[in-house]
Amino acid sequence: MDTGTLNAVTWTIPNALCLIGSRSGEEWNGMTQSWVTQVSMEPVMIAIAVDRKAVTNRLIRGGGAFSVNLWDRTDTRIFRSFSKPATRDGSTLNGRPVREGITGVPIFDEAVAWLECRLVQTVEFVTHDLFLGEVVDAGFREGGRDVPVARMEDTRMKYGGVRRGGH
Amino acid sequence: MDTGTLNAVTWTIPNALCLIGSRSGEEWNGMTQSWVTQVSMEPVMIAIAVDRKAVTNRLIRGGGAFSVNLWDRTDTRIFRSFSKPATRDGSTLNGRPVREGITGVPIFDEAVAWLECRLVQTVEFVTHDLFLGEVVDAGFREGGRDVPVARMEDTRMKYGGVRRGGH
Repeated sequence: MDTGTLNAVTWTIPNALCLIGSRSGEEWNGMTQSWVTQVSMEPVMIAIAVDRKAVTNRLIRGGGAFSVNLWDRTDTRIFRSFSKPATRDGSTLNGRPVREGITGVPIFDEAVAWLECRLVQTVEFVTHDLFLGEVVDAGFREGGRDVPVARMEDTRMKYGGVRRGGH
Repeated sequence: MDTGTLNAVTWTIPNALCLIGSRSGEEWNGMTQSWVTQVSMEPVMIAIAVDRKAVTNRLIRGGGAFSVNLWDRTDTRIFRSFSKPATRDGSTLNGRPVREGITGVPIFDEAVAWLECRLVQTVEFVTHDLFLGEVVDAGFREGGRDVPVARMEDTRMKYGGVRRGGH
């Protein structure tokens, strides 16, 4: 199994492209994310796997919650800006308006659809942690039900495969 | 949070539509699957969550391995037939040719791309188990690199949300 093939195969797995909201105390963040899926119906659980070096990893551990913000497929430029730690200014992250969910995590007002999750369990790997969150709230923005959401394939971004320099 | 909204939101999460290969002794199966994502780069780990009542759940637990078979987007009729336990006849499942991987699990010859995983860890929920598998082999079929793979949105199928009758 050569690394190039393994990378290419993992890149073919269809995934979302969305924003994860996280918060620990007064530190808030939004982060571009692709590894996300539901994993259980009872309870309704969502799994996301987050780089151990990411600010979001530390905030999810600290705050015990995260939000999954699915985004309009026609507005994918946002994902580049949220690939670095976001700048908070009041109730905005990188200038995008957010509100606080039940758990206190930021939820993006512009998200087409969103899920708020309370962290239930963490599975640790070398490069990433798998966060398993129970859904405590979910909804669409007005008119959001009819808006196709962003997918990794909508951009030239790739994420996955083996560990590289910065992974 | 009403159930109808929660179901609709979870259905918007982009996921693959693929086949899971599993085997315990002489019992083999192939099953339609949508909840699949990579979750770690070191080791390269794939997560799938499988209904606890499914034959595939028992076979993965028994055999300690599974394959993820990504499929040609233009051939989605196969997913209906693999929503029930598959019929094995020699080296075929529901008439589709399979071969044995390193771990012994069936891998579909027609899969555009495939990953073979050794089960490392299981996280149990009420309705589903989350199987975490380390990738031991992966590849494309000849010409497979250029073939778009199937996604849930390519069909009228939906999977997710809250527990229902048969979940």
